[in-house]
Amino acid sequence: MATLGLIEYDAANAEVRAVYNDIMATRKTDWINNFWKALAHDPATLRRTWASIKEIMAPGALDAVTKEMIYLAVSASNQCGYCIASHTAGARKAGMTDAMLAELMAVVGMANETNRLASGYQVEIDEKFLAR
Amino acid sequence: MATLGLIEYDAANAEVRAVYNDIMATRKTDWINNFWKALAHDPATLRRTWASIKEIMAPGALDAVTKEMIYLAVSASNQCGYCIASHTAGARKAGMTDAMLAELMAVVGMANETNRLASGYQVEIDEKFLAR
Amino acid sequence: MATLGLIEYDAANAEVRAVYNDIMATRKTDWINNFWKALAHDPATLRRTWASIKEIMAPGALDAVTKEMIYLAVSASNQCGYCIASHTAGARKAGMTDAMLAELMAVVGMANETNRLASGYQVEIDEKFLAR
Amino acid sequence: MATLGLIEYDAANAEVRAVYNDIMATRKTDWINNFWKALAHDPATLRRTWASIKEIMAPGALDAVTKEMIYLAVSASNQCGYCIASHTAGARKAGMTDAMLAELMAVVGMANETNRLASGYQVEIDEKFLAR
Amino acid sequence: MATLGLIEYDAANAEVRAVYNDIMATRKTDWINNFWKALAHDPATLRRTWASIKEIMAPGALDAVTKEMIYLAVSASNQCGYCIASHTAGARKAGMTDAMLAELMAVVGMANETNRLASGYQVEIDEKFLAR
Amino acid sequence: MATLGLIEYDAANAEVRAVYNDIMATRKTDWINNFWKALAHDPATLRRTWASIKEIMAPGALDAVTKEMIYLAVSASNQCGYCIASHTAGARKAGMTDAMLAELMAVVGMANETNRLASGYQVEIDEKFLAR
Repeated sequence: MATLGLIEYDAANAEVRAVYNDIMATRKTDWINNFWKALAHDPATLRRTWASIKEIMAPGALDAVTKEMIYLAVSASNQCGYCIASHTAGARKAGMTDAMLAELMAVVGMANETNRLASGYQVEIDEKFLAR
Repeated sequence: MATLGLIEYDAANAEVRAVYNDIMATRKTDWINNFWKALAHDPATLRRTWASIKEIMAPGALDAVTKEMIYLAVSASNQCGYCIASHTAGARKAGMTDAMLAELMAVVGMANETNRLASGYQVEIDEKFLAR
Repeated sequence: MATLGLIEYDAANAEVRAVYNDIMATRKTDWINNFWKALAHDPATLRRTWASIKEIMAPGALDAVTKEMIYLAVSASNQCGYCIASHTAGARKAGMTDAMLAELMAVVGMANETNRLASGYQVEIDEKFLAR
Repeated sequence: MATLGLIEYDAANAEVRAVYNDIMATRKTDWINNFWKALAHDPATLRRTWASIKEIMAPGALDAVTKEMIYLAVSASNQCGYCIASHTAGARKAGMTDAMLAELMAVVGMANETNRLASGYQVEIDEKFLAR
Repeated sequence: MATLGLIEYDAANAEVRAVYNDIMATRKTDWINNFWKALAHDPATLRRTWASIKEIMAPGALDAVTKEMIYLAVSASNQCGYCIASHTAGARKAGMTDAMLAELMAVVGMANETNRLASGYQVEIDEKFLAR
Repeated sequence: MATLGLIEYDAANAEVRAVYNDIMATRKTDWINNFWKALAHDPATLRRTWASIKEIMAPGALDAVTKEMIYLAVSASNQCGYCIASHTAGARKAGMTDAMLAELMAVVGMANETNRLASGYQVEIDEKFLAR
């Protein structure tokens, strides 16, 4: 159970409701997931975190599904159970197919393997990679 | 300096040279980066690791630049110096612009932040995320 | 279920009971949490780990609640479910309010974000930070 | 060398300079550390990251030195070289003594140890820790 | 529940069944654990991952129980719940006793502690460790 | 450079010298590596950390080289540069050959890969692994 509990929409104050409303409008959904309800005990962090995610995840040089897949890749690498569940859903909604998920996980697994081989063998960075 | 040293092409045996040749042919380059030269002391791991990367990183449901960016995202999240340097180069070669790099890093940073907020607040996974 | 099971007070031998008694006396509680009961299968590790924690967590240059909050911050950053639960309780007992918890988590989240931005952008350490 | 290089004050555009000026005014310093100069290639991330840090690190329920120490604790736990160097300096400026640093590191080390013992032994969370 | 569900033997196609058969033959068991059933949605990754593990975990310069214990040590350090459970079972089957498990966990805990002390204190690598 | 500098033998007080002497006697060496010299600014942590390592790393149910290899495996997985360097040296001194090192690293890499595949696919733990 979330440390400070979850604040449902009906129990939220005006500041929190305004964030909830913007989340639902931006995502075109009619519900709020637990992450935001848990953060709502700290309205400043709720507002700031949502504002940052809204700005960062908007399509730009990268499209929405690529951004969601990167978010999922990091969450899988960090082994955050909540985040894997929520961003698997988010990436799918943005267009990730099962085949894309499978290739994503294969890359995440491989990167975690070679990250340790590179560090474990104390490999020095190639000069060509240092030059700008 | 790499724990077991680096095996240059001229000093490599036939098994290692075959892998080096395939790396250069696949990547259309004329040099081998230190990671492979360090692994070459263990030809079985060199061969297996390259075969896996070649298979995983080939375009499929995800294109090459997306795969390289996911690799870079994981390496940045894991803070592997060698891997960040090598996969920044790899992603650029595959088409990642500076604007794409900046958005990638913004997502990686944000995912690492919310991963800890979700875990730190002990947020339980929403029923809707558990359903298949 | 803990790998080796949990050793309850009544089932504990004299060496384990002595540690349990010291834990309860030091913490002014009348129960032992599962962490210690799981470690009790290895009395040497039980004794050594408790002795280290007792010494480290005693007020010194830092007071008890600050130390408990640092412990919680690391556990949240590492996403250790058991440790987040136990040290949230420990920090609260030492005086952490909900407002302090919320600020703590905000700092933990931000630190995890900028740790990856610093590494991901391959930022070199400023000369001024290297000087002693 | 930072992936995209460092943008010095004189080479910065008005948007970036405004952030640099606010950093120096808030911190009462006359220089900008490399982290911000590396981020300046992405003015949106520079602005957002600084705004978040300024808000989060301002004294509130926790004072400035406690927040800086938590930041350092997370950075040490994550083993981010840049962040350890910069936040050691930041925490000292906020009042952390060598004795406080030593106790902080002892707690960070211990938390990392017991995080793995708890997970490694698969310890289930105590009922008492789950109740709110 | 696994993201893509679990593919049981009877529902598996010929390619997947061939891998399942080889896993059971190699391990001398008559069942398949969930990890493989979850991967089976991506037969290429199933095949490649199993082939790599079969090759890596075969006795060589290190015997089977040492390899399984190293696998468990990494999984405990990474706090991967599934992997700790499965490789505790695997290591036991290979000969790990409870006493060996306890010593393994003590080393894992200690290594995680000193890893952070070394990084947190910014200790430079000794010249003697750099020489080959 | 280490945050608080390094305390050489000649500059050490009696308490620190006693630990240094015991380290050299136990390891049968005539020098102290930087880790201990950096910790020496906090004699309580120096003493406690050495006492713990001495106890944990002594041969028991696991022999010395196995313990050193597990220490190295964790350090490689955590990507701690100092610890990889020092424990590569330590494991070699205890008898690890280059072939053993190569197999160790292959297992560490593979474990890091499958840890993320298991978490990324949200694989539930098998009933058989939960039973004791």
